[in-house]
Amino acid sequence: MLGVYPGSFDPFTLGHKDIVERAAKFCDKLFIAVSENINKKHLFTLDERVEMIREVFSGNSNIVVESFSGLLVDYMQSRNAQYIIRGLRAVSDFEYEFQMAFANRNINNSVETIFMVPGSQYLFLSSTIVRDIAYNKGDVSNLVPEPVYKKLMEKYNIK
Amino acid sequence: MLGVYPGSFDPFTLGHKDIVERAAKFCDKLFIAVSENINKKHLFTLDERVEMIREVFSGNSNIVVESFSGLLVDYMQSRNAQYIIRGLRAVSDFEYEFQMAFANRNINNSVETIFMVPGSQYLFLSSTIVRDIAYNKGDVSNLVPEPVYKKLMEKYNIK
Amino acid sequence: MLGVYPGSFDPFTLGHKDIVERAAKFCDKLFIAVSENINKKHLFTLDERVEMIREVFSGNSNIVVESFSGLLVDYMQSRNAQYIIRGLRAVSDFEYEFQMAFANRNINNSVETIFMVPGSQYLFLSSTIVRDIAYNKGDVSNLVPEPVYKKLMEKYNIK
Amino acid sequence: MLGVYPGSFDPFTLGHKDIVERAAKFCDKLFIAVSENINKKHLFTLDERVEMIREVFSGNSNIVVESFSGLLVDYMQSRNAQYIIRGLRAVSDFEYEFQMAFANRNINNSVETIFMVPGSQYLFLSSTIVRDIAYNKGDVSNLVPEPVYKKLMEKYNIK
Amino acid sequence: MLGVYPGSFDPFTLGHKDIVERAAKFCDKLFIAVSENINKKHLFTLDERVEMIREVFSGNSNIVVESFSGLLVDYMQSRNAQYIIRGLRAVSDFEYEFQMAFANRNINNSVETIFMVPGSQYLFLSSTIVRDIAYNKGDVSNLVPEPVYKKLMEKYNIK
Amino acid sequence: MLGVYPGSFDPFTLGHKDIVERAAKFCDKLFIAVSENINKKHLFTLDERVEMIREVFSGNSNIVVESFSGLLVDYMQSRNAQYIIRGLRAVSDFEYEFQMAFANRNINNSVETIFMVPGSQYLFLSSTIVRDIAYNKGDVSNLVPEPVYKKLMEKYNIK
Repeated sequence: MLGVYPGSFDPFTLGHKDIVERAAKFCDKLFIAVSENINKKHLFTLDERVEMIREVFSGNSNIVVESFSGLLVDYMQSRNAQYIIRGLRAVSDFEYEFQMAFANRNINNSVETIFMVPGSQYLFLSSTIVRDIAYNKGDVSNLVPEPVYKKLMEKYNIK
Repeated sequence: MLGVYPGSFDPFTLGHKDIVERAAKFCDKLFIAVSENINKKHLFTLDERVEMIREVFSGNSNIVVESFSGLLVDYMQSRNAQYIIRGLRAVSDFEYEFQMAFANRNINNSVETIFMVPGSQYLFLSSTIVRDIAYNKGDVSNLVPEPVYKKLMEKYNIK
Repeated sequence: MLGVYPGSFDPFTLGHKDIVERAAKFCDKLFIAVSENINKKHLFTLDERVEMIREVFSGNSNIVVESFSGLLVDYMQSRNAQYIIRGLRAVSDFEYEFQMAFANRNINNSVETIFMVPGSQYLFLSSTIVRDIAYNKGDVSNLVPEPVYKKLMEKYNIK
Repeated sequence: MLGVYPGSFDPFTLGHKDIVERAAKFCDKLFIAVSENINKKHLFTLDERVEMIREVFSGNSNIVVESFSGLLVDYMQSRNAQYIIRGLRAVSDFEYEFQMAFANRNINNSVETIFMVPGSQYLFLSSTIVRDIAYNKGDVSNLVPEPVYKKLMEKYNIK
Repeated sequence: MLGVYPGSFDPFTLGHKDIVERAAKFCDKLFIAVSENINKKHLFTLDERVEMIREVFSGNSNIVVESFSGLLVDYMQSRNAQYIIRGLRAVSDFEYEFQMAFANRNINNSVETIFMVPGSQYLFLSSTIVRDIAYNKGDVSNLVPEPVYKKLMEKYNIK
Repeated sequence: MLGVYPGSFDPFTLGHKDIVERAAKFCDKLFIAVSENINKKHLFTLDERVEMIREVFSGNSNIVVESFSGLLVDYMQSRNAQYIIRGLRAVSDFEYEFQMAFANRNINNSVETIFMVPGSQYLFLSSTIVRDIAYNKGDVSNLVPEPVYKKLMEKYNIK
């Protein structure tokens, strides 16, 4: 089973890491597919984000971190992967994810979306929350993996 | 019964068309009221959008396509129409639509909002989804009416 | 336009009355279709409920109050009516109503469900709330129409 | 990957069948675990339900239909299965399923719940809807698999 | 500030305890008001439930545990309390609680409902879940306070 | 009890005023903490907003209106306040507010969020709605307090 975990991951949080670890148990290979989102201003560049996530999973041979552009289903076809992995935290997630699951299935009927639930301590964690706290010099050390934490400290000049 | 179906329709999808066809059955006249949305960057200009929707319903004498600016309730008064038609797809739609229904009723108590449900194949279709897929050169031929499809192909230089 | 407003109405509240009055403005005839619900124990019998609602709308010649059994769509066909009117108050209403709208459309594709919004003072009013308050001897005089109020007082021996 | 698809399936619908077929593609073995629900009156006995579902999947060697009692996580341990498969249709499903996913994880931390989305035509289909329509002699032939349809016709004496 | 925390508490969980402890910090006196619910079959009698909760808070002089019948607002008036404390866990809670908050305010305008959020580990814990797990001989020792745990073990003959 | 009611209040509506009045009854001191929101373009400057809200509550000695920047929990510590007051209107509010309540609790465990419900006439009122109506020269005199109304009229050159 080849899975793809897509997202902009700006930045990658401990909640994302939790989902990756759960999915990596049943996927032969799990692609973390980092996307450029043209509608949002990013905190980290696409390259920085790929870099940081690679560092987080440096020891895991079945986890591949890549950037992609264009349609997710096209990227998946190029990797021969059929399963999209998504984390669900709240009702609002659920509706957006539903819409995307049906949109992707509409483009390519063999693509299937699988939803997973993170640990309850991560249910209310999002990249937006992390950015807001870090921007205001708050402590995010227990919200993001170590490599992301270091980069955030640099970014915001927190010694 | 004079109805108004307001929206920015950027672009008009098969889901919008489905709602229009259902409402046109019981409205003596149905105005499709295309609005400029100052907070969003549009893909198509107001004129282009009106043009395309007119082409879609060119044979229907009880469907009128117009642009409007200012308050919806003022536009409705100018057309002597009392009923707003809105499609509901998901819970998040529902809350926003509720808020607008009460806001409009608060301004003009004789204005009534009527909600309808599209065919289930359109429940997860939105203008945003269509724009994203077309932008990435994906196939949207089964998501929008023919005149919209042609214009999208032009816009994105897809032969 | 022939509309049907179905429900168990046990009892009929001012929220139900509000929806009926809004719908009666654009329906040539509106049938209030009172159903037996086999899964619930009723406070009032089917006959009592029909009786009370008839009293509420005794002066309105385009409002017909009837009981029905069997499938709603079959009842509608017998009355030649095509439109189901339903009030929406909250997200949980919305989901159940959606399910029923699709179920009815699945049985008879020409049946259309139209949703309306009650006055904001009725958004959190339900038959269950009324029964609970009346059972505990609380005042429900501003929650139900006069004929229902009288019957409730009798039922619970409140002088 | 060993999966378990638990439910009371009273009756098993085409929506359930759709989820089973999607999950059976990536599970080495998929157990359909039919439960007695002590809080509800059942239409079909536990044995009847197991029987019907077995007939639906009679040709599929990696699908096993069984009844179980007691805790789901205990049943899973007895089958050495780690993954619970659940279908998501609506927001209300989502909340209940979330609660169950956390409850099961709390009892046995190695148990993981995986959510899948049925075809859009099944989003508003439930066992309750099927029972209601069949009870009222409506046509459910396009809502349930053939073996369930036959049994329902018998049950309700429809020729 | 006099607060009332009403519920059927069948049984009282660690999630309920968490809310009580948070509210007791700002209430001069907090009444835990245990109600009979005529629509549900209870696991524990009203007296048993009051007894267990009293044991849980035996050392806290500003927490009073009592049963009540009739309208909550009448009970509150008898205790001179103006604030209802309620825990929110999920969207479905939210809607029901909203309805109750408006219903109570409608009966007595000086009654105010205050909502609090439990620790995230209790977000998906409910009395129903506890009863189901205990009924199936599962371990609930980390879901309920000690006195409740003992009573549950007795009830279900678990040594 | 020291409470903080944070928001961008652009502009402050009658719904906000309603929550403040309810909270001021049980708070010894209530800080209305007006924030700059870096992600949105504001209609009124931070100073204008503080000014207007001060005028609204000019007679109330236990209500303090201030601007703040940085983390809310840091501002609260500087004021020695432990309670965040938030109004809940709809399901979408609820999810965002939940996320923020847990984020704040995560940063400072002694910070508690208390949710209150406005009068039902304000359930569908928001700053965005007010801005949209005023922008289109609609009447907002029954949606905002007098000092805000005057400023809005000036802003949009409505005589």
